[in-house]
Amino acid sequence: MSQYYPLSLENAIVYARSIPDFFTADANLSCEEIGDGNLNLVFKIEDPISAKSLIVKQALPYAKVVGESWPLSLDRARIEREALVIQHTLCPDLVPIVYGGNQELAITVMEDLSDHTIMRKGLIDGNTYPRFPEHIGRFIAHTLFYTSDLGMNQQRKKEQAARFVNPDLCKITEDLIFEDPYRDVPNNDFSEDIILEVKQLWEDTELHLEVALLREKFLTHGEALLHGDLHTGSIFVTAQSTKVIDPEFAFYGPMGFDLGAIIANLLLNFTAQPGWSDNTELLEERRQWLLTSIKNVWDQFENHFRRLWNDYGIDPISKTPGYQNLYIQKVLRDAVGFAGCKMIRRIVGLSHVADIETIQDDELRHQAKVTALQIGKALLKYGRSTSSIDEIIDLTKQIVQTEGVSL
Amino acid sequence: MSQYYPLSLENAIVYARSIPDFFTADANLSCEEIGDGNLNLVFKIEDPISAKSLIVKQALPYAKVVGESWPLSLDRARIEREALVIQHTLCPDLVPIVYGGNQELAITVMEDLSDHTIMRKGLIDGNTYPRFPEHIGRFIAHTLFYTSDLGMNQQRKKEQAARFVNPDLCKITEDLIFEDPYRDVPNNDFSEDIILEVKQLWEDTELHLEVALLREKFLTHGEALLHGDLHTGSIFVTAQSTKVIDPEFAFYGPMGFDLGAIIANLLLNFTAQPGWSDNTELLEERRQWLLTSIKNVWDQFENHFRRLWNDYGIDPISKTPGYQNLYIQKVLRDAVGFAGCKMIRRIVGLSHVADIETIQDDELRHQAKVTALQIGKALLKYGRSTSSIDEIIDLTKQIVQTEGVSL
Repeated sequence: MSQYYPLSLENAIVYARSIPDFFTADANLSCEEIGDGNLNLVFKIEDPISAKSLIVKQALPYAKVVGESWPLSLDRARIEREALVIQHTLCPDLVPIVYGGNQELAITVMEDLSDHTIMRKGLIDGNTYPRFPEHIGRFIAHTLFYTSDLGMNQQRKKEQAARFVNPDLCKITEDLIFEDPYRDVPNNDFSEDIILEVKQLWEDTELHLEVALLREKFLTHGEALLHGDLHTGSIFVTAQSTKVIDPEFAFYGPMGFDLGAIIANLLLNFTAQPGWSDNTELLEERRQWLLTSIKNVWDQFENHFRRLWNDYGIDPISKTPGYQNLYIQKVLRDAVGFAGCKMIRRIVGLSHVADIETIQDDELRHQAKVTALQIGKALLKYGRSTSSIDEIIDLTKQIVQTEGVSL
Repeated sequence: MSQYYPLSLENAIVYARSIPDFFTADANLSCEEIGDGNLNLVFKIEDPISAKSLIVKQALPYAKVVGESWPLSLDRARIEREALVIQHTLCPDLVPIVYGGNQELAITVMEDLSDHTIMRKGLIDGNTYPRFPEHIGRFIAHTLFYTSDLGMNQQRKKEQAARFVNPDLCKITEDLIFEDPYRDVPNNDFSEDIILEVKQLWEDTELHLEVALLREKFLTHGEALLHGDLHTGSIFVTAQSTKVIDPEFAFYGPMGFDLGAIIANLLLNFTAQPGWSDNTELLEERRQWLLTSIKNVWDQFENHFRRLWNDYGIDPISKTPGYQNLYIQKVLRDAVGFAGCKMIRRIVGLSHVADIETIQDDELRHQAKVTALQIGKALLKYGRSTSSIDEIIDLTKQIVQTEGVSL
C-alpha cells in the first residue's frame, strides 16, 4: 500500500476523468467532498452541462470515532468494491453501479445517488417507503441465496469466502455488538439516566448466554456473503427506489445477521416515535406502519428466498422434505437474536442512532432508550424459540404497552 | 506447478540428503517406495549404518479409486504439511515431525513411523490400545481448541481459515459422505446382498433431513482446523504410542466431524467382530473393549477440552455460565450424526473398510454390513437429541441384540 495517498479535489477529478465513456474530454468538472470523514473520503464529481455525475470513494487508513482514531485496513475498499459488484450483478436495481476502482489508492468509482435520501434521515423526517419491504427483502434473499451453498457452486463458494475474509471490520462488530455492551468497559457510551438498566444488562447472565451463542454464529457460520452492516444509514431511498450501499463489512457469515440489522433499525425508529410526534393518532399510525414494514420485510425475504430455493437450488439434498422449513426457521431465529444485539448496542455501546439521539425532550429520549433496551433484551431471550415474525410484532406491542409509552 | 515431476527413488534420496543435520554426508542411503500409489508416493529413505530414516511423501496430481483416476489439486500437500506442523506444535507426542517440504514438488519430509502399525490393521489383528483414548481425545481437544475462536486470536483464526480453504478434498467428502449413499448413483459401491437395505436408505426422507443438516454444518460451520479424515487408517499405533498422520483433508469445519470419524471407525470394527472370532467369550470381551474405548475417547476429549476452555479460553463471553455445557452438547450431537454418515458411506458408498470387507464368511460379512447400516441410521436419527455418550453405547448394544448378532 506504499503508493497510497489521500486524494485532493483535483486528484479526484483526474481519477474521474479516467473512467472510460463517462465524461466528455472537454467537460468542466466540479468536485465536492461530501463524506463525514470518519472512515472514507467521498467526492462527488459533476459535469454541470450534461448534469452527469459520479462518486469517487476512497478509504482512509484509519477510523475516527468520537474523536479517537485507530488504524483500519485499506483492503476494506477492495472488499466493498467486490461486494458491490456481486450485489449489483444479483440485484441491478438495488445497488449502485461500480464504474471502476484502484487497489493501491483504495478507491471505488460508482454511481451518484444524490437524488436519494439516507433512509435513517427519511424515517426521522416522517417519510414512508412503501416499496422498501419488497426491495430489501429481495436484496437480502438474492444476495444471500446466490452466494450460499444453496445457490452457487460449493467449491467456488469456499474460494469466494476466502476473498472476503475481513478481520479488521469483523473485529469492530465482534467488539462493539457482541461484547462491550455486556460488560463495564471504557468503549461503552451511554447516558447517565439509564445506568440502572445498563447495570442490569451487565449482570444478566441468561442474556449473556444468548449473546455468546449469537457471537459464535457470527464467528463460525459462513453461510453467505453478508452485507454486514445493513442499517438504515447504509440504505439510500426515494419513494420509488432503494439502493444498498457501503458493504465494507462484507464477509461470509450467518444469514440472519443482515435481516436482524433491518429489523433492529426499524424497531429503533419505532421506539423513537413518541419523540417525533405529539399527535396520538399520527403516532399510532406511524408505529403501525413501522411494524407492518418489519413483517413485510420478513415475508418478502421468505417468499423470494423460498422461490429461489425451489427454482434454482443446486444441491439435490436441499430438496429433502422439511429441510427448507427448518432452514427458514433458523434464519428467522438468528435474525431475531441479532436484532436484539443490534438494538442494545445502539443504546449502550459506542455508536448510537440519530433516530433516538436527536429527540429533543429529555424524558421522551430517556423513554425511547429504555423501550429499545426492553425490546432488545426480549428479542435476545425469545430469539431461539421464535416460530414466526408475528410473534415478534406481538412481543414488541406488549412491551410498549407494559412500558406505558403512549400509543 | 510447472516444475512438478514425480520423484524417482534417486530423486527422493537427493531430496532426503538436502534436509540439514539428518544424514551424514557419506551415508549410503537406501530408498523404497512404500505407498499404495493411489494419491501419493511415499518413499522411506534409510541409512543402514546409523539406522536413521525418514519419509519423503509426494502428492500425485490425481486420485486413483477403483481403477478410475481423476485430477486432484497438488495444493493439498501444502495443506497437509501446514496442518501437520500446527498439530505437531499442539501435540508433539502425537504427530510426526516435519523436517521440510517443497511447494512446487508437493513434497513433505517427515518422521519415519515404520515401528508403528496402521490402527485399522492392528484392530483387525485383534490388538488393543489402552492408551489410545487418552491420546486421541487429547489430540482432538488440543488441535480443535487452539485453532478455534475459543483458544486463538479471532482475527488470526480468520486468516488461518483462508489458508486452509480446501475445495478439492472437501468436495470428495461432500459427495462421498453427504450425498451419494442417499441416492442411486454410479459412484456407489455395495454388494447385492444388501440391496434391500440400500433401497430403504434411498427412500428414507426422514434420514435425508438429518444428512442435509449435517451437510450444512460441514459446508458452513468453520469452528476449528479439523484433521478432516480421522479414520483408523490415518492413525499409527503401538501399545504405547499414537501418531496421527495424513491431514490432507484439513479445513475449518465443525468440531464433531473428527470425533465422529473415530466413533464411526471403532463402531465399524465393532460390527465386524463376529467375523473375526468364533469364541463367544472373546468376542464379547472384544466388543466390550471397543465400546468402552468409544466412551473413553469421548470422555477424554471432553475432559481435556473443558480444562483448556477453563484455563486458556481467550474469549470473555465464553465464560458465561451454561455456555460451555451447550457447546459440548452441540459437539457431541454433531459427532454422533457425523459418525452415522461415516458408517453408512463405508457400506454403501465408494470407499469401504477392510474391517468388514476382509471377513471371509459371506453370512458374517453380510451381517456386519447390515448391523453397520442399522447403527449408522440410528446415530443419524438420534443424533440431534443425544445428551450423553452412554446413550450411544446403549443404543449400539440394543441394535446388536435386536439384530440377533451373537454376543
